[in-house]
Amino acid sequence: MQPTLRSFDLAHLGHVELLSPKLEQSLRFFVDVMGMTESGRQGASVYLRGWDDYERHTLKLTEAPVAGMGHFAYRATSPEALQRRVQAIEKAGRGKGWTEGDLGHGPAYAFTTSDGHSMEVYYETEWYNPPPELKPSLKNQAQRFPARGVNVRRLDHMNLLTSDVAELRRFMEDVLGHRTTEMIVLDSGQEAGVWVTCNNKSYDLAFTLDHYGAKGRFHHVTYALDSREEILRAADIFLEAGVHIETGPHKHAIQQTFFLYVYEPGGNRVEVANAGARLVLAPDWQPVVWTEAERKKGQAWGLKTIESFHTHGTPPIDQYQGPRTK
Amino acid sequence: MQPTLRSFDLAHLGHVELLSPKLEQSLRFFVDVMGMTESGRQGASVYLRGWDDYERHTLKLTEAPVAGMGHFAYRATSPEALQRRVQAIEKAGRGKGWTEGDLGHGPAYAFTTSDGHSMEVYYETEWYNPPPELKPSLKNQAQRFPARGVNVRRLDHMNLLTSDVAELRRFMEDVLGHRTTEMIVLDSGQEAGVWVTCNNKSYDLAFTLDHYGAKGRFHHVTYALDSREEILRAADIFLEAGVHIETGPHKHAIQQTFFLYVYEPGGNRVEVANAGARLVLAPDWQPVVWTEAERKKGQAWGLKTIESFHTHGTPPIDQYQGPRTK
Amino acid sequence: MQPTLRSFDLAHLGHVELLSPKLEQSLRFFVDVMGMTESGRQGASVYLRGWDDYERHTLKLTEAPVAGMGHFAYRATSPEALQRRVQAIEKAGRGKGWTEGDLGHGPAYAFTTSDGHSMEVYYETEWYNPPPELKPSLKNQAQRFPARGVNVRRLDHMNLLTSDVAELRRFMEDVLGHRTTEMIVLDSGQEAGVWVTCNNKSYDLAFTLDHYGAKGRFHHVTYALDSREEILRAADIFLEAGVHIETGPHKHAIQQTFFLYVYEPGGNRVEVANAGARLVLAPDWQPVVWTEAERKKGQAWGLKTIESFHTHGTPPIDQYQGPRTK
Amino acid sequence: MQPTLRSFDLAHLGHVELLSPKLEQSLRFFVDVMGMTESGRQGASVYLRGWDDYERHTLKLTEAPVAGMGHFAYRATSPEALQRRVQAIEKAGRGKGWTEGDLGHGPAYAFTTSDGHSMEVYYETEWYNPPPELKPSLKNQAQRFPARGVNVRRLDHMNLLTSDVAELRRFMEDVLGHRTTEMIVLDSGQEAGVWVTCNNKSYDLAFTLDHYGAKGRFHHVTYALDSREEILRAADIFLEAGVHIETGPHKHAIQQTFFLYVYEPGGNRVEVANAGARLVLAPDWQPVVWTEAERKKGQAWGLKTIESFHTHGTPPIDQYQGPRTK
Repeated sequence: MQPTLRSFDLAHLGHVELLSPKLEQSLRFFVDVMGMTESGRQGASVYLRGWDDYERHTLKLTEAPVAGMGHFAYRATSPEALQRRVQAIEKAGRGKGWTEGDLGHGPAYAFTTSDGHSMEVYYETEWYNPPPELKPSLKNQAQRFPARGVNVRRLDHMNLLTSDVAELRRFMEDVLGHRTTEMIVLDSGQEAGVWVTCNNKSYDLAFTLDHYGAKGRFHHVTYALDSREEILRAADIFLEAGVHIETGPHKHAIQQTFFLYVYEPGGNRVEVANAGARLVLAPDWQPVVWTEAERKKGQAWGLKTIESFHTHGTPPIDQYQGPRTK
Repeated sequence: MQPTLRSFDLAHLGHVELLSPKLEQSLRFFVDVMGMTESGRQGASVYLRGWDDYERHTLKLTEAPVAGMGHFAYRATSPEALQRRVQAIEKAGRGKGWTEGDLGHGPAYAFTTSDGHSMEVYYETEWYNPPPELKPSLKNQAQRFPARGVNVRRLDHMNLLTSDVAELRRFMEDVLGHRTTEMIVLDSGQEAGVWVTCNNKSYDLAFTLDHYGAKGRFHHVTYALDSREEILRAADIFLEAGVHIETGPHKHAIQQTFFLYVYEPGGNRVEVANAGARLVLAPDWQPVVWTEAERKKGQAWGLKTIESFHTHGTPPIDQYQGPRTK
Repeated sequence: MQPTLRSFDLAHLGHVELLSPKLEQSLRFFVDVMGMTESGRQGASVYLRGWDDYERHTLKLTEAPVAGMGHFAYRATSPEALQRRVQAIEKAGRGKGWTEGDLGHGPAYAFTTSDGHSMEVYYETEWYNPPPELKPSLKNQAQRFPARGVNVRRLDHMNLLTSDVAELRRFMEDVLGHRTTEMIVLDSGQEAGVWVTCNNKSYDLAFTLDHYGAKGRFHHVTYALDSREEILRAADIFLEAGVHIETGPHKHAIQQTFFLYVYEPGGNRVEVANAGARLVLAPDWQPVVWTEAERKKGQAWGLKTIESFHTHGTPPIDQYQGPRTK
Repeated sequence: MQPTLRSFDLAHLGHVELLSPKLEQSLRFFVDVMGMTESGRQGASVYLRGWDDYERHTLKLTEAPVAGMGHFAYRATSPEALQRRVQAIEKAGRGKGWTEGDLGHGPAYAFTTSDGHSMEVYYETEWYNPPPELKPSLKNQAQRFPARGVNVRRLDHMNLLTSDVAELRRFMEDVLGHRTTEMIVLDSGQEAGVWVTCNNKSYDLAFTLDHYGAKGRFHHVTYALDSREEILRAADIFLEAGVHIETGPHKHAIQQTFFLYVYEPGGNRVEVANAGARLVLAPDWQPVVWTEAERKKGQAWGLKTIESFHTHGTPPIDQYQGPRTK
């Protein structure tokens, strides 16, 4: 068995920008129901964070005519690591150039994935400094536990839709240095889903085949909770708040994530999940390959995968106008 | 803030060898009460594993006249990384030389920590291949969930006692490339406890001051469970099995680990713990420094630290004959 | 609002007799997977108990050609209360007469429900006296926690299928003194499901319409666990044991029970559930009535009710030969 | 074994009146930290409820110079049952007479326990009718889940201090019809603690010896949560809110309650607890008697009972002026 570690240049998924045609309602959802904290505003965007996110924000919520994912960003492990990745991206011909940074982080290099999703890498960041009323009692914690709504802890991972899973996998592995931990390969040999990681979480990015063949669409963003019990309670809270529950709580066979999917008011899919003690510590972890037959068994305990899980993405297909290019 | 990542050469704590003067009783404890699986025997040793450990074993239980820790080992991230660490160890003058390996792993380089604990690093390992009756239903899992006793999931971390905390910290940082995530510094400036990691777990090794000034003693080894609820149930199971519960379940202020400490029949302290979703993903995490005053507040929710936690180690102090040298 | 308490004559559901065409496999399921304890054998029957059941047994497993429910029994609150209920049953013309009792309990009065289910009431019982190896550490507990499989705590409730819900409700209320806590009433006015209790549990008996119009069939028996986390773990254990999971874990809208349904090897449906802190303490609780439209919303968090939940009962409809008359 | 059921005349503990010298701070504690809902104000009192309490209120918070318990009340199972209990109280010479009722309930009969605690019994009550914004999504629930602070579910039980445990036990059994489920009897034969119930909860009232020999003091009131995980999270929330945690979370040996004790700002002790699936369904349950030696073992998992648990009560002993007589 050969080492599968690709590189240590990326540290973790840093933040995701969601586009909402109903900014105020989306904001209320993330603050009141998800229990997140607003940590800044600028232009048409509001910046948000979970109570254990160490950076100033992990979610940027931006007003836009159509729902979708604006961009997502990874933090590098060092300035040198950042340079290495930028060179690789430029060599792959996907680079767009440096930005001056954003509220909460320094210069970022912007580029597009092989499927056209907007993406950035950066190193310099602002560690969150809570105001007095949000200082935690334990100094090893980023912020006071809010005790409001679902109380999401931290950004966990993100899922994309793509017109070409294998190509996006190669881009993530070869250009960005991720390693693949699990994947779905159809009987035809076509890859239908891939889960990759750049650290010891078993994944912080996943991407599955877009059933419409569209490019650059978004499937969901996930925030982590500490226990399965909290996911169940989250379901109660979503129910009381009138939030649309798409499916769950249940346990995925793939990655064994305990999941719960809802739609935020802007139309984007949001997940709360618990990965428990599951980590990939082995440096030579070989991808677990799921066949078409295995996938048909449904989720871990037999729940059939809901149809909308394969079709709903943002932008919604009837408002889709090709991958974002700005 | 400067990067604090030391190196990516070590992947994770691989296994711990515990010495027991009551081998059969210790074995029954680990199999029947902890829910571990025996995966080999050789000489005076029995090899054991949790259901989610990917390597053949994470615990080597060896018959010996006096309780204690025989050695502990880290797996490197690649053959090259292993070579780099060996060179650093030899340069530090702590090397003992290569072993031919052991049941379940290939050649290991043996050495001693600055305080005399026996330690090894290795890369080649045997991925666990369960017999038919222990094949899991989900192929991304190492072994069938045992549904017996406490059902520990995987090796989590280990704690040492040391006569010189600062010196051991420098050894772990400079020679082995760990980074320090939390530490206790007394008013006198003396370091009293340090928690280090080589991956995204907030620690996989800790060491605290030996109140007797002895060298090379062992404090405890910890196995992870998925939830706090399972730790509570473990307390019920230990109670029913007549296992001595030293302290807990409660939550440490330091690292926020939800803990439960017991003594296995051979006399070694064993912990079951849940770290939940807590990870250190930041590459530039700065050590959290706890003062003497903060430490006096007790654990997170106010439980006073039990006296034996500062005095009990193995070998027991009345049987201590200096650091192991073999 | 008028008092709805019917009588205090019945204390609780005492035990259920399940018929299995695969006795040995059913026994292994209840002992190894459910974590129950065998507490006696007699004739073609094996007697079983959960670790917190105070009586000698709560489940009687009997070999039979076809799966089904042999009989179920309620314990009365006193000898006098028993007499009062027997008189009411005899007056209703449903009595069959006194039995000499069974392993674990004294004389029982046998009768049939309005739909032909075999039922008994009794008062004298044998409090379980565990053998030394099953003595609990805490003296207020019936038996040692087994730490094996699912570890079901105690018998919780039972569900029947019936050809006439309203008639069975009136029988349970008027003759046995139960009170109705929740019910489903179709737009046509027909009652489709009723939940009744004789104590502070929100129900210990439920019955729903048999879609085949058959009489006296059985839907499921339920054992209680302490937490929702344990139900989730039970799902993992059923999966590993190759037990067919029909639906769940999820939360019922009706009664808010957190449920998980499986089929035992003999073909009978078995549930593990957690009702948490939910009790009906109000003496004047009025039945909560669910409409056809409300029922169509599915379970609490939106899961659609699985088709087999409405059709599978025991005896299976293709082996049904009318209500048991013995 | 003889039946121990005393009577079915009392349904459950209905409400408790707490006296606070810091009304506004106490109110903020119960609303913001405990997650309770204000359901009325009258005079110097604010009325509060948990989200699953069916009556309008279960806590009456009254401004007073010194902390303590104003009165507590039980609801009867019927108007006739109420009359029977009033007659028994009058016969025992403890009656004070009928009140006109209070916000949320009808006429109540006031009396004192054998130790001088103010107590009431009533039948007529007001079922809580939530305003639109507090309507629950599931119609079998009293109120919307608040998703704020600790989110206590319902009033669970109350503990009193008494100068004479045995006398108070006889009063509770003989006059009010409670049955004793567990008790502590010292080597001298003196009763040191008694747990009684009037329903299927294993207790809804407890009383222990006042170490100062004072009469009529109050120990604590307890609200129930659904799971042990929620009790642990409550500890985090109390810590963040600066609430004094006295002891816990841990599991009592007696009654096996999973407990957490804090002091509300007015000085009264408040507990959040989870009793899980534990019920006393047996009509002939015999009291479990704990000896002095057994009690010295501490709590279930070995935690030593904290000293203040034996001494702190309200009114505080230095402000005690004899039992309340109003």
